Amino acid sequence: MADHHEQAAMRRALEAAREAVEKALPNPRVGCVLLDAHGQVVAVGAHRGAGTSHAEADALARAGDRARGTTAVVTLEPCNHTGRTGPCSEALIAAGVTRVVYGAEDPNPVAAGGADRLRGAGVEVEGGLLAAEAERLNVAWTHAVRTGRPFVTWKFAATLDGRSAAADGTSRWISGPDARLDVQRLRAACDAILVGTGTVRVDDPRLTLRDDEDAPLPYAVQPTRVVMGESVVPAEARVRDDEAPFLHLETRDVGTALAALAAQEIRHVWLEGGPRLAGAFIAAGAVDEVVAYLAPALLGAGATALSGTGIDTIADQVRLDVTDVARVGPDLRLTARPRTAALTDEDRS
Amino acid sequence: MADHHEQAAMRRALEAAREAVEKALPNPRVGCVLLDAHGQVVAVGAHRGAGTSHAEADALARAGDRARGTTAVVTLEPCNHTGRTGPCSEALIAAGVTRVVYGAEDPNPVAAGGADRLRGAGVEVEGGLLAAEAERLNVAWTHAVRTGRPFVTWKFAATLDGRSAAADGTSRWISGPDARLDVQRLRAACDAILVGTGTVRVDDPRLTLRDDEDAPLPYAVQPTRVVMGESVVPAEARVRDDEAPFLHLETRDVGTALAALAAQEIRHVWLEGGPRLAGAFIAAGAVDEVVAYLAPALLGAGATALSGTGIDTIADQVRLDVTDVARVGPDLRLTARPRTAALTDEDRS
Repeated sequence: MADHHEQAAMRRALEAAREAVEKALPNPRVGCVLLDAHGQVVAVGAHRGAGTSHAEADALARAGDRARGTTAVVTLEPCNHTGRTGPCSEALIAAGVTRVVYGAEDPNPVAAGGADRLRGAGVEVEGGLLAAEAERLNVAWTHAVRTGRPFVTWKFAATLDGRSAAADGTSRWISGPDARLDVQRLRAACDAILVGTGTVRVDDPRLTLRDDEDAPLPYAVQPTRVVMGESVVPAEARVRDDEAPFLHLETRDVGTALAALAAQEIRHVWLEGGPRLAGAFIAAGAVDEVVAYLAPALLGAGATALSGTGIDTIADQVRLDVTDVARVGPDLRLTARPRTAALTDEDRS
Repeated sequence: MADHHEQAAMRRALEAAREAVEKALPNPRVGCVLLDAHGQVVAVGAHRGAGTSHAEADALARAGDRARGTTAVVTLEPCNHTGRTGPCSEALIAAGVTRVVYGAEDPNPVAAGGADRLRGAGVEVEGGLLAAEAERLNVAWTHAVRTGRPFVTWKFAATLDGRSAAADGTSRWISGPDARLDVQRLRAACDAILVGTGTVRVDDPRLTLRDDEDAPLPYAVQPTRVVMGESVVPAEARVRDDEAPFLHLETRDVGTALAALAAQEIRHVWLEGGPRLAGAFIAAGAVDEVVAYLAPALLGAGATALSGTGIDTIADQVRLDVTDVARVGPDLRLTARPRTAALTDEDRS
């Protein structure tokens, strides 16, 4: 059983992971605290994104010789594979760490096995401490690694009666400036922003994060701008400028698109497509989270936020669980998760 | 200036008004406290609905001879007209009340003038104490009396993407049992429930309050069931049963309908019509409050909650102010008020 020093250390490791970086994608956010035999903190480490040290290596480097005989408290099971850095399990063994306490299990079939490797070397290992909180650090990453496809957040803005534009196509601005800034902040937590070729043709959006409004945005790397669909993306389209990566997925098939994104190590997609693209993702059971900005307004006509799902009777509706409701300026932001990614027989009954 | 005894008495009068009855329609809810020269409470009265004593008369009756020389603290300006009961201003003068402190002004052009009548008889009068709270006791009544037409609450239930039914017409149940019970409770606060002839033809609803579910509902009188439209309401339609009053308004004109309801002393209409009836009310600027039950579900096809408003460009959207957001079981209830009943030039700019 983890003692109270280790519990406190895990809370500190979680905080270190959160404070180090808003987004470590394609990697998880991880924190690590080394404790001496008296339960005193020797070093605190965290991962700061691809190409930088893992949290364990960061803590070991800070501790130097003092690492010998310590307990490592890590938010995620230490990895066992050699990527851009060596396996953390080996580094912990080499440094003379005698006990490892971790939070979430490593869902990565390639990287997992770190706990077993440590045990094999005689290190005492205990997992699952504050595991739920540790998983929340990396919801999208965990999903992506476990399923082999990115976590998809579908964002839409609509009036209270579900219209995303008026009958004549005008839609500026359904949601207010606070909601638009909020969208920038949430986009920054993702590693790709996805729209359809139709949106590029009609709106020619730039799809970059901009921090020249009211406050700097917490991003280090611009998300990849992904345009999906078989139509051409013109050379002069703004999404092709050099401010952020660009990717054209020339397919209409959601599964093919997600596989292509996974192959690019994209873990968290922010889907902003029009109603039909969103409908295709819903129909494929590929939306993992919905973020809806509802403006306190009524139209009574115009494009709806969602179409083409193929759902034609109430028993087949996609049921969600609301996880958060927030007022954002005059607008309302609802966050919800589908009860199941795909419809089950129970949903249909 | 009202002293602290009078302030406390006003809070007690507000509480008495609220506790006496959930709905006094077509009358306002009113409370009255009589204070002696030392600021001690002599009697507390309240109005309990049409045909019962006004709050002042109730308090005076309870006080008997002890009313002489008291201060009457009333939530609403005492009335000055002879309805089913005599004018309260005269009753207060006759009982020897020497000072009157009231909350809200009487908006009723027929009943108003009570304060002047009291002053004319040498009674010291002060108005406006906790006036905002006093007005909130009777939002719909105040609106109806001030404008000469009922206060209209439009209620709808829809999925997060704004659908009130699936493509095949099925809609049971978009919102859950908690939301349906909540609707019963809010219906009970109104004095009419309005639908269109189309809803009667398709759904044949009963539109009565039923307290045989989980908890008794706080109503004394069933709201009048009003069906609007030029089509026939069949003799065997459930809305014509003898469980509650029934009224057929054979018109499509919203203004004509509201005038007919006002003539029946209906102050607060609960509009549950389909999307086109709601659209006609929105187009006429006749919706004073929106209560939206949003189910955490997606459809992507099917009837929308609102249509036929005639609004075809974003600048003409009806902007609302959200006054309340509540979780009702798995559903979300939003309450909102239009910024202006009719669109102004500013809204269009």
